[in-house]
Amino acid sequence: MLTQQVIRRAAEAALEEDAPYGDITVETTIPAEETGTARLVSRETGVMSGIGVFATAFTTLDPDIEVTALVRDGERFEAGQTLAEVSGRMRDLLTAERVALNFTQRMCGIATMTAAFVDRVDAIYRDCADTNDRANTNDRESTAPVRTPRTFARTRIADTRKTTPGLRPFEKYAVTCGGGHNHRYGLSDAVMVKDNHLAALAAAGLDMAGAIRHIRERVGHTTHIEVEVDRLDQIPAALAGGADTIMLDNFSLADTARGVDLIDGRAIVEASGNMTLDRVAAVAATGVDVISVGALTHSVRSIDLGLDM
Amino acid sequence: MLTQQVIRRAAEAALEEDAPYGDITVETTIPAEETGTARLVSRETGVMSGIGVFATAFTTLDPDIEVTALVRDGERFEAGQTLAEVSGRMRDLLTAERVALNFTQRMCGIATMTAAFVDRVDAIYRDCADTNDRANTNDRESTAPVRTPRTFARTRIADTRKTTPGLRPFEKYAVTCGGGHNHRYGLSDAVMVKDNHLAALAAAGLDMAGAIRHIRERVGHTTHIEVEVDRLDQIPAALAGGADTIMLDNFSLADTARGVDLIDGRAIVEASGNMTLDRVAAVAATGVDVISVGALTHSVRSIDLGLDM
Amino acid sequence: MLTQQVIRRAAEAALEEDAPYGDITVETTIPAEETGTARLVSRETGVMSGIGVFATAFTTLDPDIEVTALVRDGERFEAGQTLAEVSGRMRDLLTAERVALNFTQRMCGIATMTAAFVDRVDAIYRDCADTNDRANTNDRESTAPVRTPRTFARTRIADTRKTTPGLRPFEKYAVTCGGGHNHRYGLSDAVMVKDNHLAALAAAGLDMAGAIRHIRERVGHTTHIEVEVDRLDQIPAALAGGADTIMLDNFSLADTARGVDLIDGRAIVEASGNMTLDRVAAVAATGVDVISVGALTHSVRSIDLGLDM
Amino acid sequence: MLTQQVIRRAAEAALEEDAPYGDITVETTIPAEETGTARLVSRETGVMSGIGVFATAFTTLDPDIEVTALVRDGERFEAGQTLAEVSGRMRDLLTAERVALNFTQRMCGIATMTAAFVDRVDAIYRDCADTNDRANTNDRESTAPVRTPRTFARTRIADTRKTTPGLRPFEKYAVTCGGGHNHRYGLSDAVMVKDNHLAALAAAGLDMAGAIRHIRERVGHTTHIEVEVDRLDQIPAALAGGADTIMLDNFSLADTARGVDLIDGRAIVEASGNMTLDRVAAVAATGVDVISVGALTHSVRSIDLGLDM
Amino acid sequence: MLTQQVIRRAAEAALEEDAPYGDITVETTIPAEETGTARLVSRETGVMSGIGVFATAFTTLDPDIEVTALVRDGERFEAGQTLAEVSGRMRDLLTAERVALNFTQRMCGIATMTAAFVDRVDAIYRDCADTNDRANTNDRESTAPVRTPRTFARTRIADTRKTTPGLRPFEKYAVTCGGGHNHRYGLSDAVMVKDNHLAALAAAGLDMAGAIRHIRERVGHTTHIEVEVDRLDQIPAALAGGADTIMLDNFSLADTARGVDLIDGRAIVEASGNMTLDRVAAVAATGVDVISVGALTHSVRSIDLGLDM
Amino acid sequence: MLTQQVIRRAAEAALEEDAPYGDITVETTIPAEETGTARLVSRETGVMSGIGVFATAFTTLDPDIEVTALVRDGERFEAGQTLAEVSGRMRDLLTAERVALNFTQRMCGIATMTAAFVDRVDAIYRDCADTNDRANTNDRESTAPVRTPRTFARTRIADTRKTTPGLRPFEKYAVTCGGGHNHRYGLSDAVMVKDNHLAALAAAGLDMAGAIRHIRERVGHTTHIEVEVDRLDQIPAALAGGADTIMLDNFSLADTARGVDLIDGRAIVEASGNMTLDRVAAVAATGVDVISVGALTHSVRSIDLGLDM
Repeated sequence: MLTQQVIRRAAEAALEEDAPYGDITVETTIPAEETGTARLVSRETGVMSGIGVFATAFTTLDPDIEVTALVRDGERFEAGQTLAEVSGRMRDLLTAERVALNFTQRMCGIATMTAAFVDRVDAIYRDCADTNDRANTNDRESTAPVRTPRTFARTRIADTRKTTPGLRPFEKYAVTCGGGHNHRYGLSDAVMVKDNHLAALAAAGLDMAGAIRHIRERVGHTTHIEVEVDRLDQIPAALAGGADTIMLDNFSLADTARGVDLIDGRAIVEASGNMTLDRVAAVAATGVDVISVGALTHSVRSIDLGLDM
Repeated sequence: MLTQQVIRRAAEAALEEDAPYGDITVETTIPAEETGTARLVSRETGVMSGIGVFATAFTTLDPDIEVTALVRDGERFEAGQTLAEVSGRMRDLLTAERVALNFTQRMCGIATMTAAFVDRVDAIYRDCADTNDRANTNDRESTAPVRTPRTFARTRIADTRKTTPGLRPFEKYAVTCGGGHNHRYGLSDAVMVKDNHLAALAAAGLDMAGAIRHIRERVGHTTHIEVEVDRLDQIPAALAGGADTIMLDNFSLADTARGVDLIDGRAIVEASGNMTLDRVAAVAATGVDVISVGALTHSVRSIDLGLDM
Repeated sequence: MLTQQVIRRAAEAALEEDAPYGDITVETTIPAEETGTARLVSRETGVMSGIGVFATAFTTLDPDIEVTALVRDGERFEAGQTLAEVSGRMRDLLTAERVALNFTQRMCGIATMTAAFVDRVDAIYRDCADTNDRANTNDRESTAPVRTPRTFARTRIADTRKTTPGLRPFEKYAVTCGGGHNHRYGLSDAVMVKDNHLAALAAAGLDMAGAIRHIRERVGHTTHIEVEVDRLDQIPAALAGGADTIMLDNFSLADTARGVDLIDGRAIVEASGNMTLDRVAAVAATGVDVISVGALTHSVRSIDLGLDM
Repeated sequence: MLTQQVIRRAAEAALEEDAPYGDITVETTIPAEETGTARLVSRETGVMSGIGVFATAFTTLDPDIEVTALVRDGERFEAGQTLAEVSGRMRDLLTAERVALNFTQRMCGIATMTAAFVDRVDAIYRDCADTNDRANTNDRESTAPVRTPRTFARTRIADTRKTTPGLRPFEKYAVTCGGGHNHRYGLSDAVMVKDNHLAALAAAGLDMAGAIRHIRERVGHTTHIEVEVDRLDQIPAALAGGADTIMLDNFSLADTARGVDLIDGRAIVEASGNMTLDRVAAVAATGVDVISVGALTHSVRSIDLGLDM
Repeated sequence: MLTQQVIRRAAEAALEEDAPYGDITVETTIPAEETGTARLVSRETGVMSGIGVFATAFTTLDPDIEVTALVRDGERFEAGQTLAEVSGRMRDLLTAERVALNFTQRMCGIATMTAAFVDRVDAIYRDCADTNDRANTNDRESTAPVRTPRTFARTRIADTRKTTPGLRPFEKYAVTCGGGHNHRYGLSDAVMVKDNHLAALAAAGLDMAGAIRHIRERVGHTTHIEVEVDRLDQIPAALAGGADTIMLDNFSLADTARGVDLIDGRAIVEASGNMTLDRVAAVAATGVDVISVGALTHSVRSIDLGLDM
Repeated sequence: MLTQQVIRRAAEAALEEDAPYGDITVETTIPAEETGTARLVSRETGVMSGIGVFATAFTTLDPDIEVTALVRDGERFEAGQTLAEVSGRMRDLLTAERVALNFTQRMCGIATMTAAFVDRVDAIYRDCADTNDRANTNDRESTAPVRTPRTFARTRIADTRKTTPGLRPFEKYAVTCGGGHNHRYGLSDAVMVKDNHLAALAAAGLDMAGAIRHIRERVGHTTHIEVEVDRLDQIPAALAGGADTIMLDNFSLADTARGVDLIDGRAIVEASGNMTLDRVAAVAATGVDVISVGALTHSVRSIDLGLDM
């Protein structure tokens, strides 16, 4: 989903942003013909995303640079692990270093955080299986049962549109590297009906079900319609209108479970609203299909990567 | 430092990224002529940055939208505080909302984190003054004395080049809104000599002092030369070569203090390396002039802002 | 769906393409201060699309030009009808004329052709109603009954990706002005599974149903999956896999009807393949939900519009 | 006339328009390393234009794709003929397919229509020669004699500025592939004097001859001046002013012939106005030098090309 | 010929080139709200060109700045004369000053140098008239007679393609402000046949006359064909082929006169090759139609303009 | 300092500016497959700058062209010397020729003029040495003694911001090829305090020393502060404020010498204002560190280079 063309253009812009008049330090210190090799090493554990972007940052500056990736996007790495080797003109290695790292550290940060959310969710199915294995034991009796989502095999972690301006393709891709799924790319490729939209149609005499049918008539047949609800009592109308996805916005855990029951597989169920690592497993256990997490892209801690010459 | 031209171009790119074929939800729900008003409200305390960017995101989409800022960049705000009012065509308010917030939440996040670092540093001078007021009392005896930097009135918090590709002007500006200072903008506007550069010149027979003089001869007279040192024993050579700034990279607190003594005002002293809120005050108290903090821009938690219609 | 930003950028590019060094004819003939008024008149009947693009072509060149639209996009117009009035500096009116017309003539051509297809389809429902009114008469006995589509109220006319490079938003918008609907915007916003894709997954051991489920697992929850089938016997597997839309590619009329029966409302049914005005009504009468027509955008006859000074 | 740089930039824009977030179908179905070969096959007869554009669309996406052209621009092809072979990564072949076809189908459509016009014109000279051969037979007596143009060997078919915004270089090139000639590229490279321009100079006291001399004095010495006339009686003044080309706008056949006589080789004669295939031979037979045909570019039927994997 | 769109884009690029992160001097010294007025004053005499570019440089940065032009392009100004007044925010006046001056000083330099050449040429006609008035006086007997060009009223001064990359429209426009004329804009809008081109066609069996006819057959009917000759004996073939312009490259004065005689009005005559102010009058007096001068754009001395606050 | 990315983008723009629809002369004369070789030859002596730009102009048009540089940037060349050899497709050699020359002739012009200034300055140290050698001779007694600058080994020749819009990186680079040094790149990377700035701060109650300290507090620690003074009596305040560089604007020779004495090594001393070749040696002999010369970039005479096929 992240095309080479998009990567190259972003790399060009970033290199020019960093060195509009070149790198005056290497130009006054390093001989033009000197070559060298560097290793991309992680200072901490994480999940790789953007190893191709890392390579393209170098080759955009200098097509003669050779980059050998030692991990693939989506793979986990350890602190101290060498992730790639880069060799070529020393000047260009040093000049492109920061741009290459700025992209990759952020993408790894997103992938790593996404993987943490995905792991929490996946754990509930393992725990559940464990519990079954340990039938007749008593130690988890008080836990609410884990319910499997109706539409997908497991509850998904999805991103949002809360991305860094200009970097959405990079960030949405990084989410998939972490095992997450993408929500819509933007305002053009799916409908998301919120209260303001409903209010406008209500003024025109349409209730929620009518509103959804009104929209359906107008959008293309491949366009998904998602409806955001704030209260359980809105769900029947959303179903009546034929919503493809119903998003439970800021629901309590109990209400989320009730929402899943009410919807009963007739629409995809998405839970949203200030999701944290601590809370995500419990939400997933209610059987929602999708949990969307804004923090995956709006509050990213970069993974500490270094380039050792 | 963040020009209107740069803001406008970034806003255009972000709007197109989010809605290449328009906002199909508002187009099928909101009458074209409907107008409305929205308030930008913060869900938490923070420091404002990017209120002009927020406004430009809307006016780039629709020049008829009116935005009234209620706080200025650099001001602190409380949870629940209204930061701006926006009025105009309802469709355009909803379409531009996410882009406007994506820029501003990130910028406020940077400003707020920067302010937290600056506050920690500033506190040491107040504490110090307090101590003097409370002369003859014993309660802080064991504390190392707070030393004032030689070049600047107070120790500065500075950013780095670890910024988000494409957004450097926004992020460097946000740092100043939080009371921080900017390091060099990129590879063209100041020299930063690191071990790789020195190694290359060493191969040509130049020691560190010679290397700095070699560079000085070649760069423009307005170009600042900063030298990164890893050990105390490198400092005399850096001074001998005439470095403008000496950066103590990953020094212990004790060595930082020794470095400040050794340099003795003959160069600006910068401390760098995994700075945290917990550690920054102690580093500042050694009397370094500048503390650079990569996390200000590479690991930002967005401030939670909302647009209430 | 066609944003002002996209229009403006295309208008700028077109104006520069036509007059990189200005309009040397007006510069040597028309006084700079001379003003005038022109009327956009159609030489034939048609359906309007792009009246806003027409206006923007002029105002992009010269913001002082005033354009008054006399019809709205989607409205039909007669030969000789005045569609808009333009007034301002004579030089700029003449310079922008061709660019404004080139956009609008093409868009009106698309809207008009689309409307012709939509009219043919809509007619079958009217004829059908007429027939019911004329119960007990014999004159249409031999005609196959008109079946209403299961998913939409009436069979839709949809566009394809066979658009002019660079003008897709304009052309997709023009289709909607003619009463048509948009198919997916491109390769990123919906899945279209064809034989090559299936062959690749078959090599990995997946049959069609398995292939669709494989894809569903990987794409976002708002992503629509359409499957193209060449033969009736592929339909059960497409349904088993959970295809959202099944496209009957180049089916005979009889097989199309059989396909509709087989699918029986469990997926949207799209008919495709060299649709002509002559054939479209019969295809619609089979009860398919969507008929996609490449010619709407790849073989457009411009509507003859003129600007009378 | 169509530079590689222009092609590449248009291909980049088209690929991004079609797949801003990549091709989600191939990414979820085709293994990244799978390769294949495809053949570009025509479904109908036509004249090739854009075989290089076709190739560049693929190599812009993926420089490793190999394209072998089997026909050259300007050559005629049959239905079923293989026009090119493409081989490389299967994913990239499928992703670039539509963009490559959208360019080429349109260009072939223009070349093919142009060739049809050129053929009609060329036929009159052959017929004419035949007639001479068949001297003393009576069967064409009633036909007006075919007159050869004075300036060029044969009457030319030329395009106009009625091109698709953004694609003018592609479309003007396609016209030459069909045997046509280019009119001016735009408003900067030749003067075209119409009634509005003359009216403005008349207000300044200049008659048509004076107007042309006024313009001649101001434009560069390489700039061609063409004057559009609506009536025969305007021709003497156009000649007196020194027009390089006189365009007979919407003249009857008889008046066209009279115009050619009147001009008598002292200027190039262009006939213009709703030219059709049916009428073009008769117009050419009057001896005009150039016949310009807007439909060549504003009303193009794409040639049906397919990519068989 | 210099469009507002071209000016605006160049101004945006220049402003960003000069201040990618803003103007750090005004931001730290001038209050944001302070306003002021400045006068554009010339330090020397010259000919104005680019007063509109000057204004656009300011209004591109800040649309609220008001610029009043006191001279028009093409007018002469004296040392000390005020050419324009600018008022608005002080910060923006200072920030845009250098960019505005860089454009205008260069354009005035070109216009002024062009005017100097034009003056030298025009003087010969005045002198000639004077001489006639002073009939029977002896003082100019030895001077060769001044011959009027055959195609144009007076010998023209024309530019070349030796322009600054990226600024051709600005520089070609400036030439016209100085009273000069434009040669072709570039390689696409006129043919210039030189020895390399002739050699290639000679290898294909075409002599110069045949070569010109070969080209004529292929280019559009509005395309001018100019042929460069190095020797007098090439002229008959150039005329035989139908060249529109014959360029005498580096001819001696005597040979230039002979060339004019030989061509005898059957083609436009252009003289070229290291023209200087000293030599231009004598060349013009031979009766050539056009004298092209590369130095007009490739060796420009900027006019010294200042902005007085 | 001139990056390959910047060169390539400028070359693309220049090639498109020159040949938007290709080179119609080569397309109608030279066979597509014909190849050839050309030599870049200088018609006069000069200093090379832009040999890499020359090569990139060709390879941007056609990557198969091979360019062999025979001199390096910064080297002097003689009239008649071959500077580079270019071989490849004849069409592309001819099409790119003018663009390649336009860049390089200008850059060589700048380098050559810069070298002339640098030579004049360097000569004073040689003369000085000579004088010492010839001690006890009388022939230079009346000459003021040559003083060595305090900050740099020799007085530097520096450029200004008076560059051609869009070409600053090319021109600043060319200055260094001629042995000059770069002043600040633009408004963002160094502070230059002039009277208008001081006036604004004076209104806020700050004298010059206070103003400089005010600025120092706000700009980054790597930012150089230069202060322009018009009179000797301003120097003490500039020193008191801690200016990094003091620029003596339009000082007489005597006052320049007095300024150098007053500053006495406590700041870098720059002399500026209408520097000419005649005057520069005397100014340098006062011991200033830097002499900035606007004419280096604003009034350039191109070096006459030719491409011989």
